[in-house]
Amino acid sequence: MSQNDALRSLDRQECLRLLAKAPVGRVVYTRQALPAVLPVNFCLDTDFSVLLRTSPDSDLVRAIDGVVVAFEADEFDAATQSGWSVVVTGRATVVTDPAEHERLSHSGPTSWMPLHDAVFVRIESGIVTGRELRGTHGAR
Amino acid sequence: MSQNDALRSLDRQECLRLLAKAPVGRVVYTRQALPAVLPVNFCLDTDFSVLLRTSPDSDLVRAIDGVVVAFEADEFDAATQSGWSVVVTGRATVVTDPAEHERLSHSGPTSWMPLHDAVFVRIESGIVTGRELRGTHGAR
Repeated sequence: MSQNDALRSLDRQECLRLLAKAPVGRVVYTRQALPAVLPVNFCLDTDFSVLLRTSPDSDLVRAIDGVVVAFEADEFDAATQSGWSVVVTGRATVVTDPAEHERLSHSGPTSWMPLHDAVFVRIESGIVTGRELRGTHGAR
Repeated sequence: MSQNDALRSLDRQECLRLLAKAPVGRVVYTRQALPAVLPVNFCLDTDFSVLLRTSPDSDLVRAIDGVVVAFEADEFDAATQSGWSVVVTGRATVVTDPAEHERLSHSGPTSWMPLHDAVFVRIESGIVTGRELRGTHGAR
């Protein structure tokens, strides 16, 4: 099997469909000039932007508000050596509009981590790329 | 359950033990001034550095050789809303020593992706951090 046969690029619609079913993704950003990554729960909004719920005084909010970040989700199966990954690259902004905050409090993302107070962060789905790895027997 | 009860920091030894059993991790780096992330197979070397096997002409190699990157692995269970994540931050370097390359060809990481030719990349385990999320019922 060649590398081209093993890997397939996913179109935007396939990427968003896969993203919608993942419970956890990873925010990729820069913290104190070093690459950083943090797993978070998320959901997709009606415009397919990625929504996170986090603590307003978190390091994450301070680091990413107004900044272009990457957001990744994937799923792999070790038994079949197959899976997919999707990356969204876009600007992250804290939701400050009270009506929007209220809407997301009811219909927005939840978090597996208990939060006393919460803010929502939106990551625009500017660039969406993905790839599917079909099963192979590995290379050594 | 408070946020402190839900999240526990993992020490270096716990982190390395969890890393050792994960089949896939994610390299976090910068590509053309944008945050980037790529899932890869890996293994830990005897000095606990992270080892990847990839194509010598890959974008990844060009982007990370000689550069500080982050490397993340995690495992989450949606049913219990629990899991762990570990992040290694350190310099990535392509293995150029022929004897070392030969050693890793036999005992080093494999890849689920077929590779005609392969190079090995070592990520020093300079900073190793991790956290465990204990089960909770989420926050809305």
